[in-house]
Amino acid sequence: MTRIAYLGPAGTFTEQAARQFPVDGAEYVPVDSPASALAALAGGEVDYAVCAIENSVDGAVTATADALAATPGVQIMGETELAIAFAVMTQPGVALSRATRLATHPVAFQQVKQWVGVHAPDAQFVPAASNAAAAQMVADGQADIAVAPERAAELFGLTVHATGVADSETARTRFVLVGKQGALPAPTGADRTAVVLRTPNEPGALVGVLKEFAARGVDMSRIESRPTREEPNTYQFFVDLVGHAQDPDVADALRAVEDKASSVLFLGSWARA
Amino acid sequence: MTRIAYLGPAGTFTEQAARQFPVDGAEYVPVDSPASALAALAGGEVDYAVCAIENSVDGAVTATADALAATPGVQIMGETELAIAFAVMTQPGVALSRATRLATHPVAFQQVKQWVGVHAPDAQFVPAASNAAAAQMVADGQADIAVAPERAAELFGLTVHATGVADSETARTRFVLVGKQGALPAPTGADRTAVVLRTPNEPGALVGVLKEFAARGVDMSRIESRPTREEPNTYQFFVDLVGHAQDPDVADALRAVEDKASSVLFLGSWARA
Repeated sequence: MTRIAYLGPAGTFTEQAARQFPVDGAEYVPVDSPASALAALAGGEVDYAVCAIENSVDGAVTATADALAATPGVQIMGETELAIAFAVMTQPGVALSRATRLATHPVAFQQVKQWVGVHAPDAQFVPAASNAAAAQMVADGQADIAVAPERAAELFGLTVHATGVADSETARTRFVLVGKQGALPAPTGADRTAVVLRTPNEPGALVGVLKEFAARGVDMSRIESRPTREEPNTYQFFVDLVGHAQDPDVADALRAVEDKASSVLFLGSWARA
Repeated sequence: MTRIAYLGPAGTFTEQAARQFPVDGAEYVPVDSPASALAALAGGEVDYAVCAIENSVDGAVTATADALAATPGVQIMGETELAIAFAVMTQPGVALSRATRLATHPVAFQQVKQWVGVHAPDAQFVPAASNAAAAQMVADGQADIAVAPERAAELFGLTVHATGVADSETARTRFVLVGKQGALPAPTGADRTAVVLRTPNEPGALVGVLKEFAARGVDMSRIESRPTREEPNTYQFFVDLVGHAQDPDVADALRAVEDKASSVLFLGSWARA
């Protein structure tokens, strides 16, 4: 049995993403944060962890980035994408127009505010700890409407009034499948490589490192500076490269970067979704 | 009367930060998001907006970055820093050990989880829409304990049991004072300059731009790629520079960058906190 940790409870988008990876006979284990998912993986309690890594609207998922940088012995093996759109649900037989308490996670509420203003203008927002918890609140009678992933309606026996609800139609989230460090997935010709760099604390040091990619025509698809959390005002850089660490140009650039950066943490090479 | 918009309601950290800027006879206007604060500024309803821009633990505040990039005619004029630590409060005469429902914003809850585990292990987490709303919930009897900025206790007549509560002792948030576009604050010798860059979509384009800073010894203190929200997989880069746009090296680098980038949005030059 392959055990896969994900940000729970059951019914979250991360669970939905975890189920998109082709794993036979998997058991899905809900945990309470990306850091817990990776800790369970590093500790051998699960075989894989699935974590949200980037949202097309909100950018990097910082909790996952920090957890990847802080957990030794893990490696990204693959990715999948989900369109982030919500379902609106109530207990069976309840009309939306009569429902007054609308529960969802505060972040989700930001993403559906315009829709709610039009379709349930009188509903009062009741914050929930997660979208799945919002569905539970409706099931328990503590709220009338939940805004949650569609799967939550199934889990809690609720009626779905609308699906695909999202103020921004292009919101997509990318999730990664993280495994134990080991052999890289084979190059496919359409791959992504992620590294975390630290550079000497002097002007131009970062550019000196990034030049090694540019000089070889290796494109960066993303770069984020993040506090190291070790000392104030010290940063590490999360860089996504287009290509696989076994592609000659990428391999060559990574060797050159090893010499210039103060540290390079390799997070993996895998096929793009 | 100088009107200053901030992320409300009254009692938030942003209100506390807004009051740290030396403005005589200011009126503080609560709004519901960084975007609303900047919209009120652009629309002439207020004279300044105060927004959180970076947290030493969580990194960039993406809602503020995106709103700055999307609101024409505004400019950062100054900054201030706050140590992010919470107060724990109840109604007068209530013992912490007897309190069972603990209200706070889910993000704040993540920052005090360890403390709560030790000092109020039996308390059930009740999510609130903001930290200040949590204090309101305690005042109204819907929760027993609130975790909120200390000022909220004053506003809602609550008793403070502990202050300075934070699992990470170094958490600090930087807030910016944003005004209408106009004259730059004078250079102080310890300044920060922020720009938003877009580059042609080709390998090495970003490095080509950043090289102009490095060549002149201008240090970047921060860089973040953020989705443009206009087209999937297109990015803009938020770059903080050490120095003032009127410093000769910075001015010279910015002129060179104008030629190479597809667009450069200048967000301001101001004294570092």
